[in-house]
Amino acid sequence: MKKIDKTSRIPLYIQLMDILIDEIENQMEENDQLPSEREICEKYDVSRTTVRQAISELERDGYIYKRQGKGTFVAPKKLNQDLIRFYSFTEEMKKLGKTPVSKVLSFNIVKADKKIAFKMKRNEGDLVYEFSRLRLADDVPMLLETTYVPHDRFPGIRKADLEKTPLYDILRYRFGASLTMAEEVFRPVMTREFEMEMLKMPAEVPSLKIERFTYDGDAIIEYSNTIARGDKFKYRVRLENQ
Amino acid sequence: MKKIDKTSRIPLYIQLMDILIDEIENQMEENDQLPSEREICEKYDVSRTTVRQAISELERDGYIYKRQGKGTFVAPKKLNQDLIRFYSFTEEMKKLGKTPVSKVLSFNIVKADKKIAFKMKRNEGDLVYEFSRLRLADDVPMLLETTYVPHDRFPGIRKADLEKTPLYDILRYRFGASLTMAEEVFRPVMTREFEMEMLKMPAEVPSLKIERFTYDGDAIIEYSNTIARGDKFKYRVRLENQ
Repeated sequence: MKKIDKTSRIPLYIQLMDILIDEIENQMEENDQLPSEREICEKYDVSRTTVRQAISELERDGYIYKRQGKGTFVAPKKLNQDLIRFYSFTEEMKKLGKTPVSKVLSFNIVKADKKIAFKMKRNEGDLVYEFSRLRLADDVPMLLETTYVPHDRFPGIRKADLEKTPLYDILRYRFGASLTMAEEVFRPVMTREFEMEMLKMPAEVPSLKIERFTYDGDAIIEYSNTIARGDKFKYRVRLENQ
Repeated sequence: MKKIDKTSRIPLYIQLMDILIDEIENQMEENDQLPSEREICEKYDVSRTTVRQAISELERDGYIYKRQGKGTFVAPKKLNQDLIRFYSFTEEMKKLGKTPVSKVLSFNIVKADKKIAFKMKRNEGDLVYEFSRLRLADDVPMLLETTYVPHDRFPGIRKADLEKTPLYDILRYRFGASLTMAEEVFRPVMTREFEMEMLKMPAEVPSLKIERFTYDGDAIIEYSNTIARGDKFKYRVRLENQ
């Protein structure tokens, strides 16, 4: 068993967190109950304050969740998203045996403002679709996305189409677009309050903010801004040397 | 000028944030002073509460910083890190014209525990270097890293070596290692208090937690755990279709 080193410069609650993460990842299953605070105090010979601090950080990091009056449980594992080849949420969730659903929260045709025009390499005032979608997997909200698609290249898309058919299928099969490449730019952000509500997040957990630029040849055919729950995903890249 | 839409479902402070981000990114320079709260209230016809909420979220997201009694200023821009080819902090910072420095905070040779052995595909008890480094660019702390390197493949590395020479140069030129590929796994996390102190972060900003596995052929010659300031970096990937 790993032990707490009281002479170390690393704070006790961080050492305890590392021990508990190790147990959660290697010895426990999703939704297993954690020992009580008192049991953890005794097992590792640390104070109640240390245990509380470790538990509260593990909750913030999305490793565990609390049920009022019931105790603390292991959170479902994070989904691994490879950032290597082009991917779509729908296809990724299906591969994992989950049922993807998109709720269209808003749908408009608007004139591109300066920022959107810049992002999409278009002229200010060009018509674009602007729609927000909540993406769920097995009824669990995972992503909150706002997407822009040029109207002239893809005329006649309706809100109902997006509820029935994955966007990329519409672009590909109805309009013959070829999704040659996507670029993603991302950074960690604090989840805003209304995003937490939409995504039904259990505690204050940070998110990954992802901008996606999808290309058909040289043309940007999709620009999107996504909030991805930090407690649901981890991402993987492969960096080749040359 | 972009306007606040008081009939929209999007909260006013979020609309105001988006307007201010647009101005910061397109019309202002690093360290420029923002207008006062009162001026922003008047310009966009919103309440003081709305302005305060927008300003405080912009600070949390790392767009701006406050100076007691002086006002609010545009934060230095984020560095763009491409996750496409193998990169090293030292080389990336030099490319940007910045001076990279590594402070070695701790340096030990330890027996790999179960977790480290698993991560590095080694046996429990194998000797590994374990060292923590604070990575700075032009004296600004950017990353906090804990690194593991197998001892048998790279005997005789000392703390002083790491202070003088980039790790990858040691592995390459002193031991003939070939850094063929690295894999990175990352997710957004709340920055812990002692990490914020080490990194001298101005406000509660989330970080990216990055695990790196560096390969020489099939062997893992480096495993590291990094906290990268969320207000200093953004990352870019290219997703090819096929």
